[in-house]
Amino acid sequence: MTKPTKHILVCGSFRASGAPQGICARKGSGNLLGYLEGELADRGLDGISVTATGCLKACDRGPILVVYPDNVWYGGIEGEEQVDAVLDALEAGSIAEELTLG
Amino acid sequence: MTKPTKHILVCGSFRASGAPQGICARKGSGNLLGYLEGELADRGLDGISVTATGCLKACDRGPILVVYPDNVWYGGIEGEEQVDAVLDALEAGSIAEELTLG
Repeated sequence: MTKPTKHILVCGSFRASGAPQGICARKGSGNLLGYLEGELADRGLDGISVTATGCLKACDRGPILVVYPDNVWYGGIEGEEQVDAVLDALEAGSIAEELTLG
Repeated sequence: MTKPTKHILVCGSFRASGAPQGICARKGSGNLLGYLEGELADRGLDGISVTATGCLKACDRGPILVVYPDNVWYGGIEGEEQVDAVLDALEAGSIAEELTLG
């Protein structure tokens, strides 16, 4: 296998049983997955993987998105505007500071 | 929030709907989550987060486990023996080479 150049995690609030619950899912993080993957394709950002995850335990700041291996955590990813900001930063090799956590 | 010092992803094969399917889940990756979290506590490895994920797209090498921000991908994590090998390496600040991918 080839490792992704970047790996974007999107909190899907899955519990152990797999049921999506919790804040990130309730705030619509699941709906952003399709947009995110479409944008990556449109922008030609090959080699970037997107994965939905179980609860990332930062619920009070959700919806959460993490970019690895950069180890950049973003919060308040509530819509396409915030996804665009994150991807703009990725393309520029920078960080969308206004959305970062920690 | 405080970022985890290490973040271990365990493929739970979740599809977009949240249903755990696919190879990693069928091979019992879900059963390893509890063991992994117990071992981290027993070893006093504080600050390490564990998160189940959707399909990590390395199904032919599953069950998959990823350690970030190290960006180390492991395959064939079929039981406690392999989890122990990964944690032994983490404690030693090294990598369980025999299980690595990519």
